[in-house]
Amino acid sequence: MNPIKPIFFEEERLFLLDQRKIPLKEEYFECNSFKDTYYAIKEMVARGAPLIGAVAAYGVVLACKEFKDDHKQNFIKNMDYAIKHLAKSRPTAVNLFWALRRMEKVFKSNVDSIDTLENLYTLLINEAHNICYEDLETNYQMARYGVKVVKQKARILTHCNTGALATTGYGTALGVVREAHYVGKDIKVYVDETRPRLQGTKLTSWELQKEQIPFTLIADSVSAVLMKKGYIDLILVGADRIAPNGDVANKIGTYGLSVLAKQFDIPFYVVAPTSTIDLDISCGDDIQIEERKNEEVTNINGVRVAPDNIQVYNPAFDVTPSKNITGIITEVGILGADKNSIREFRRKGD
Amino acid sequence: MNPIKPIFFEEERLFLLDQRKIPLKEEYFECNSFKDTYYAIKEMVARGAPLIGAVAAYGVVLACKEFKDDHKQNFIKNMDYAIKHLAKSRPTAVNLFWALRRMEKVFKSNVDSIDTLENLYTLLINEAHNICYEDLETNYQMARYGVKVVKQKARILTHCNTGALATTGYGTALGVVREAHYVGKDIKVYVDETRPRLQGTKLTSWELQKEQIPFTLIADSVSAVLMKKGYIDLILVGADRIAPNGDVANKIGTYGLSVLAKQFDIPFYVVAPTSTIDLDISCGDDIQIEERKNEEVTNINGVRVAPDNIQVYNPAFDVTPSKNITGIITEVGILGADKNSIREFRRKGD
Repeated sequence: MNPIKPIFFEEERLFLLDQRKIPLKEEYFECNSFKDTYYAIKEMVARGAPLIGAVAAYGVVLACKEFKDDHKQNFIKNMDYAIKHLAKSRPTAVNLFWALRRMEKVFKSNVDSIDTLENLYTLLINEAHNICYEDLETNYQMARYGVKVVKQKARILTHCNTGALATTGYGTALGVVREAHYVGKDIKVYVDETRPRLQGTKLTSWELQKEQIPFTLIADSVSAVLMKKGYIDLILVGADRIAPNGDVANKIGTYGLSVLAKQFDIPFYVVAPTSTIDLDISCGDDIQIEERKNEEVTNINGVRVAPDNIQVYNPAFDVTPSKNITGIITEVGILGADKNSIREFRRKGD
Repeated sequence: MNPIKPIFFEEERLFLLDQRKIPLKEEYFECNSFKDTYYAIKEMVARGAPLIGAVAAYGVVLACKEFKDDHKQNFIKNMDYAIKHLAKSRPTAVNLFWALRRMEKVFKSNVDSIDTLENLYTLLINEAHNICYEDLETNYQMARYGVKVVKQKARILTHCNTGALATTGYGTALGVVREAHYVGKDIKVYVDETRPRLQGTKLTSWELQKEQIPFTLIADSVSAVLMKKGYIDLILVGADRIAPNGDVANKIGTYGLSVLAKQFDIPFYVVAPTSTIDLDISCGDDIQIEERKNEEVTNINGVRVAPDNIQVYNPAFDVTPSKNITGIITEVGILGADKNSIREFRRKGD
């Protein structure tokens, strides 16, 4: 169903569709070591919370490949280091830590008892594959729930990229858009370009064009006037981390959209797997927001557009309070963005 | 006081600081004909509502230079054509039409009685010079009124470029910022990059750096979260057209800022000369909003960033309703953004 393959593991190597080059080129970036996967996450060869989780999982697989021929003591030390290193690649998306914990559990619960490290390597590959397959299934399930909030004829605003490129395939918010299109709803998408990295322009436009879903690209600041004029029926966004009280960290710009949506009474849904929920924090204030380098704002395509030596504030994410969110569409159902429904469903989903 | 000279007329030619090249190069674009000035406005060699008015005025001067050696009948026909042509350069900023009407008045009221067209040429040069000098004086006067709304210590958010580069010098909203800095207030400016043309990144940053006024550049979608966190004390923007009911057309993105400002109770002032008020319309809905070409969004620095053949919506301006505006700072005082105060002051200012 889905023509886009953002990630695959073959002959002991991880291949990632290089998202820095889309839409101009479709090239795969090859990871041979856990440090390659660290680089791929940090430099956004691959991005999107669910996909980052899968990439990190294969990062642990590659670490095992690199260290398994050493003595077990060294192996354990190196694996511990690799997992800690991978966890530092990006700070905001919780799926990264969730996937690393799953891999670490397989590693730690087997390393003492297993006969050979070669067999442990196989177990880790299986777990990483599982993370991928489960993510894909999760995407389909979210799409099935999410499609119910899309009217037969709907103009949908979306932000950043939440599609096949942000996951192991299909997508979160854009998965719902795909599903609505596949089941024959008459939809049109407004795509925020999403400064500074232009994931809307480069990635979401590319995916929608491939699917032949009608869309219009806009500068981020155009959405306010579209909402005011009544041109937007629904807003769908993804999430990088969800606090137990329903606050959501997502791509910078999401918060402003939520304020406008509330002002104009436009349904505002977050689409994200339950692995995005972080039960170790209490609210959005506890989420560390990644600040990225100035050059993302001051340079475009490697060309300086701003004066030299200026101060820039470049947060990659913002936090939308639960009160601005109509609902959170997950693989276990549509949660009200409130503490009780999130805690309860998280327990079921675990 | 002001080190930036965006426009000057010398040896029968108009020189415009080429704003397409700032901040990388400081080069002047030379206009020898009215068509050169049409090009300069349309292609945004010069931009900003008050500056466009001045450029169009010199466009009429250059038309006179080109046609004055012809028979009077041809001269009149050609001048009429030139004025109509210049009026088509950009549709939204009313200062353009206002300046052209002033020039047309000098032309029409003198062309029959004047002894030589050479003398008419001199009259037109004088009128264009007057428009420039008056704009500069107007800027200083707005700044004197505007500085009163700036607290002794203030963090100011601004959008697009409203500085010396948007006027004949000093600026509208940025003129108030300059004034606050010169009188010793402790200010810090947050500069919206202002997609798609990045006037904030390229022009406002450049002006503030020259003045050594502290500032931080942000992507447009960052401002919402700054407001929420209480980091913004005041918002100052310019205007391209003001309706008699107080609705204001300004750079795309202004409307969204005004909604957020209202939500967070942040004073939101428009700074614009009374020549920006259009008494021929009744409200913001009557303002024609220029839509610019797709490439402003899909290409950056001439490099394609979006897939080919996609639909783009690229309005250059939006309309902010008067209810979202705290006040309009003009050269005749700070007007409440309501019908009565605008009509009354417009009469005084005329």
